Amino acid sequence: MNQIQIDKTFLRRFRPDTRYLIGVSGGRDSVTLLHWLVERGYKKLIVCHLNHQLRGRSSDADARFVEKFAAKYDVDLEMGSAKVRALAAKQKMSVETAARDARYKFFAKIARRRRCRTVFLAHHADDLVETFLINLFRGAGTSGLSAMREVSNRRIGDIDLTIVRPFLGAWRREIDRYVGKHRLKFREDASNKNLGPLRNRVRRRVIPYLEKTLGRNIRQSIRRAALIAAEEENWIQDQLPDATDVDSAAVAASAEEALTVAKLRDSAVALQRRAILQWLRARKITNIGFDVVESVRSLLDQDAGAAKINLPQDRHVRRRAGKIFLE
Amino acid sequence: MNQIQIDKTFLRRFRPDTRYLIGVSGGRDSVTLLHWLVERGYKKLIVCHLNHQLRGRSSDADARFVEKFAAKYDVDLEMGSAKVRALAAKQKMSVETAARDARYKFFAKIARRRRCRTVFLAHHADDLVETFLINLFRGAGTSGLSAMREVSNRRIGDIDLTIVRPFLGAWRREIDRYVGKHRLKFREDASNKNLGPLRNRVRRRVIPYLEKTLGRNIRQSIRRAALIAAEEENWIQDQLPDATDVDSAAVAASAEEALTVAKLRDSAVALQRRAILQWLRARKITNIGFDVVESVRSLLDQDAGAAKINLPQDRHVRRRAGKIFLE
Repeated sequence: MNQIQIDKTFLRRFRPDTRYLIGVSGGRDSVTLLHWLVERGYKKLIVCHLNHQLRGRSSDADARFVEKFAAKYDVDLEMGSAKVRALAAKQKMSVETAARDARYKFFAKIARRRRCRTVFLAHHADDLVETFLINLFRGAGTSGLSAMREVSNRRIGDIDLTIVRPFLGAWRREIDRYVGKHRLKFREDASNKNLGPLRNRVRRRVIPYLEKTLGRNIRQSIRRAALIAAEEENWIQDQLPDATDVDSAAVAASAEEALTVAKLRDSAVALQRRAILQWLRARKITNIGFDVVESVRSLLDQDAGAAKINLPQDRHVRRRAGKIFLE
Repeated sequence: MNQIQIDKTFLRRFRPDTRYLIGVSGGRDSVTLLHWLVERGYKKLIVCHLNHQLRGRSSDADARFVEKFAAKYDVDLEMGSAKVRALAAKQKMSVETAARDARYKFFAKIARRRRCRTVFLAHHADDLVETFLINLFRGAGTSGLSAMREVSNRRIGDIDLTIVRPFLGAWRREIDRYVGKHRLKFREDASNKNLGPLRNRVRRRVIPYLEKTLGRNIRQSIRRAALIAAEEENWIQDQLPDATDVDSAAVAASAEEALTVAKLRDSAVALQRRAILQWLRARKITNIGFDVVESVRSLLDQDAGAAKINLPQDRHVRRRAGKIFLE
C-alpha cells in the first residue's frame, strides 16, 4: 500500500552501492525519486540541479530548496546554471527543447568530472504517454514514438550517458500517493516550468478529453503501444547495417561523405528513411520532416527527373555519379 | 483541379488490362474508386458486393443500387450475402469485425472462382488515420498501428489475396470533391453501416477535437506516423527469423508444436513478443492483449517461479523441458 509499483528487474543492473547522478529539479517527481532511491539504499547519489533561469527569483529558490534537500539526505550536490531563454532564441528552438539540451550538456559535464556515466531521471508513465502523443501529433515515426525507455543510451559530445528511468512504469497518481504518505516537500512549479504549450495542452486537455470520450483507460493503451514501439526501435537500431550506420561520431566527422545510391536502393524503405534521416542529422540539418526525407529518398530512383533537392537553411542534396551529396 | 491527388507509382504494378476484384458497398468511397479506375482504363473489374443484412430493406436497396451501377459501367458483378449480426454473436466479436471477416471470406471465395487474387478497396487517408488511432487506443503495437498499406497481402484460408488501396494517400475531402465534380450517385449509409461505436466516436468527435485543440493538421501527422510504421512493420516481418515464423500455414497446422525457450530467449524482446503473438494466434487464441504476451514471455526466464500461464478461453501455456506448450 502506498508503494510505487514498478518492475524492478531492470534495476538489478544498477546496484545501490555504486555512484550515480540523479537529475533533481526540486519538483514533485524528482524529489520522490531521490527519496525512493535513498530508501532503497542508494547512498552514493550525486544530485544534479541546473538552474534554467526561466523564472527569476523563483528559479533561485528552487536551487536553494534542492541544496537543503541534498544536505538533509546527505548526498552530493552539483549545481549549474544556463540561460535557457537565450539559448532557445539563438538556436531557434522551443524553450522546452533548449532546456532539455542544456540539462543533458550539464549532466555530461558532471559525468565527466565525477567519472560517473549513469543518470537517474524521474520520468513516469504519464510523461511517457504525453511524449508519445506529442511526437505522434508532430508526425514522428517509430523512433520518435518510442523516445523514452527505462534504460537508454545518449551520446552528448564525446560522453556516453546511460539514462535510467525507474518510474517509467508508475503513474503520476502513484507518485502523488507516495508524496502524501511520506509528507515530502517539493517546489510546486519546479518540474513544470519548462513545459511547452503543446505538452501543456496534451496533459491538461487532450488526455482528459480522450479518457472521457472513449470511456476506457486509454493512457494504459498508449503506454503499451509506446513500450512495444520502444523495443522494436531498440531492435531496428541493432539491425541497421553498417552501411547506413552514419550516426557514429566517426562518420559524422567526415562531412564530405556521401550516401551510395546502389547500396541504399537495395535496402527496405524503412531502412532508407532511417539512413537518410541519420545522415542529414549527422550533418546538422535539423527540423527534418517526413517530406524532406521522402524528397531525398526520391533521388534513389535513377529514372527520377530531379537530381537535386532543396533543404531548409539553404542547403541542397544532389545525386551525382551514383552518390548522394550534401551541398 | 478536382482530381484525386495520389502517388500512382505503386499502381504501375497493376496494369489496367488485367482482371481485378473491387469491393463495392455502394457508398461514396467505393463508388468513387470504381469510377476512378474505369476512367483510368481498368475494364476487367469484377465488382464484389456483400449484403451484410444489417439494415433490412435498406441493405437490399444497396445491393440493387450496386447492381445497376455495375451494369452502367459494363463491369462484372458478384453478389453475396452474410448474416453478419448472427456471425458476430456466435464468434463473440464486434459487428464491425464480423463484417470485415465476412467480406474477406467473400473476396477469397470469388478470388478462387474467378482466378483473380487482387482486390481493390476504397480505404482513404482518413480511414487510415482513424484505424491508427483506434488501434492505439486499444494498445496495439507497431503491427497494429500500421494495419493499412497501399499494397498488402492477406491469407484467407488457403487463398493469398493482394489488397490494393489506391486512395490511401487521398483525403475524404478530395473524394467529396471528385464525387461533386462527376455528379456520382451513391447510397448514403452504405459505407457507414458497419462502423463500430469506437470508430464513430474517433471520426466524429476525437479527430475534430484534436484538430481544434492542437491548432495544426494533426491528421497529416498521424498519417505520416502510420506510413512510417507500415514500412517498418514490412521490414520487421521480412527480418523475422524462420524459427519464429510461426504464422505460416504449415506451422499453424501443427498445433502441437512448441516454442523453444533457448532459441527465443536469445532474440530481441520485440521479436519475442511477435513470435509469441503469432504462435498464439496460429493456435486460435484470440483477443491476445499485451499482458498475455508478457505473461508467456515471462516463461523464458528459467528463474521465474511460475511455469504455467492461464489464458482466456480456459487454455494454458506451460514451460516444460525447455519448451513452451499450449494446453
